[in-house]
Amino acid sequence: MNIAVDAMGGDYAPHMAVRGAVQAAAELGVDITLVGESVAIEKELHPRLSTDRVTIHHCEESIRMDDSPLQAVRKKKRASIRVAFNLVKEGTADAVVSAGNSGATLASGVLVLGRMQGVDRPAIASVFPGEKGYVVLIDVGANVDCRPSHLFQFGVLAHAFATSCLGMENPAIGLLSIGEEGSKGNELVRQTRQLYEESPLNFTGNVEGRDIFTGNVQIIVCDGFVGNVALKLSEGMGEAVTRSLKTELKSSLFGRVALLFGRRSLDSFTRKLNYEEYGGAPLLGINGIGIVCHGQSSSNAIRNAVRLAVDFVNSRLIEKMREQCRQHG
Amino acid sequence: MNIAVDAMGGDYAPHMAVRGAVQAAAELGVDITLVGESVAIEKELHPRLSTDRVTIHHCEESIRMDDSPLQAVRKKKRASIRVAFNLVKEGTADAVVSAGNSGATLASGVLVLGRMQGVDRPAIASVFPGEKGYVVLIDVGANVDCRPSHLFQFGVLAHAFATSCLGMENPAIGLLSIGEEGSKGNELVRQTRQLYEESPLNFTGNVEGRDIFTGNVQIIVCDGFVGNVALKLSEGMGEAVTRSLKTELKSSLFGRVALLFGRRSLDSFTRKLNYEEYGGAPLLGINGIGIVCHGQSSSNAIRNAVRLAVDFVNSRLIEKMREQCRQHG
Repeated sequence: MNIAVDAMGGDYAPHMAVRGAVQAAAELGVDITLVGESVAIEKELHPRLSTDRVTIHHCEESIRMDDSPLQAVRKKKRASIRVAFNLVKEGTADAVVSAGNSGATLASGVLVLGRMQGVDRPAIASVFPGEKGYVVLIDVGANVDCRPSHLFQFGVLAHAFATSCLGMENPAIGLLSIGEEGSKGNELVRQTRQLYEESPLNFTGNVEGRDIFTGNVQIIVCDGFVGNVALKLSEGMGEAVTRSLKTELKSSLFGRVALLFGRRSLDSFTRKLNYEEYGGAPLLGINGIGIVCHGQSSSNAIRNAVRLAVDFVNSRLIEKMREQCRQHG
Repeated sequence: MNIAVDAMGGDYAPHMAVRGAVQAAAELGVDITLVGESVAIEKELHPRLSTDRVTIHHCEESIRMDDSPLQAVRKKKRASIRVAFNLVKEGTADAVVSAGNSGATLASGVLVLGRMQGVDRPAIASVFPGEKGYVVLIDVGANVDCRPSHLFQFGVLAHAFATSCLGMENPAIGLLSIGEEGSKGNELVRQTRQLYEESPLNFTGNVEGRDIFTGNVQIIVCDGFVGNVALKLSEGMGEAVTRSLKTELKSSLFGRVALLFGRRSLDSFTRKLNYEEYGGAPLLGINGIGIVCHGQSSSNAIRNAVRLAVDFVNSRLIEKMREQCRQHG
């Protein structure tokens, strides 16, 4: 198996991308193709690191975080993220991992690999560790202005993903709104609700922001604007909570004693609040596997994203999703 | 000073509303009028509680959480929340506190007291304890489908509130979006941004969900759908974090020792995550003071909301806001 890692993507590229890829290659026994500017990548390939399974695919261009995704992808034909998806298309790689501009990653995936049959708007899913198990939030940033039919398709995609890769059977789907009553929500939510109610999917009605953590439903659907705000908010709150807890404990003698004894539990607790653990967010609805990582991903996060990509390849995600989408599309 | 408390509002009405009001009367030395069904209220007025400053204003009707706000307020002329605002209108009370249906509270306030000059859409603000000080999020649920001009007015209202009541000078305003770059966001955000850029307000550009906790800006503007999702999400995450921290610590011996020593610090930490501390969310843009409390408010939360109302009356919020809205409107 070969995973193409966009070495030029992310705030700390190519450093973190290269380190994470090398770690993944060593730990997971998988081949990695680092796509990007070869001189910059080679500088990061420390001679002490084991790099047998890592090769470089050189390309000059890359897409910046502040580039307009669609324009940049169309114009920069030799951008690392486009080239990475080309490797999947030609069969050299099995999946793409990138911490770069997520809009550009999606646009490249769509442009190079195409959309799955019946899918108008591929979406980005994020997997939260809910108290009763995983919760899939979709879309977390690919589509900011949506129609009801798009929000319905997100549910179909997430259903296919959750049953294929997360081992869920008939996952409950909720529509993110501002009250559980059907009358509540904005125009988009009220119209989308009807589509779900008429479908054979296991739709349980509206849910609220808090349900991302409870796990009362397994899939939560929203437009990409709301989803991205929710994702960034929970990341920010996780970080703030961790800082605040440490400050609070350090401010008293008893607290410092508690910190001493509780270090392990507290570390395990803060790790749960950390977006790096799950690794990345899968692109759903394109004809191939793509994982979007946080722009500030550490090497750890990149390694976890590669692990996720390997899992998806092994569980034949794309074939299973195609079949599911045919059934519910 | 007299604060009208809607005794019939909230999931635990009238129990929590009555208890909180009695606490507030005793601790703050303020008169309270409990508005609602007198028999039900009297049952809660335990003889041991000091109730010198508490009077009951009887009315038969009340609005339920699942009522359609506008219809219910128009139809139920003798609903407790409408009657409470009437007391303000006739000069008997100085402010209203309710844990009931927030849409109905807003609609009653608008119907009975009217909108401030130049304000099309009054909004609900929520005050978050950011790491660098308070952050005002507006709107958190009053207006789910907004135009750019509404989002601009929310900023004017929050600016007036923050300078009048939170002691802020020229607070920085950010527009909640999914990336800091001006090109990012949905159609509504892009159009609203222009209005802010042409205004004399201290607009600093787009912010992300994480900024609700950092305090990099003092005011964050969004539509009521996004704001309510954000509010519920942060409440839910706060609760989940608290539960998870305790479970984690209790699961090991060292953790239990840490819990023993760190109890005080941990309590102080979890209190910060608790929506009850600030007390409630002010309605901004109507000709009077109204505080919306969480539907699941405890008596503590109600007491804190009354304290907030007293602060607002003392700082002449309405007069100051009128003046500010004239300047920026």
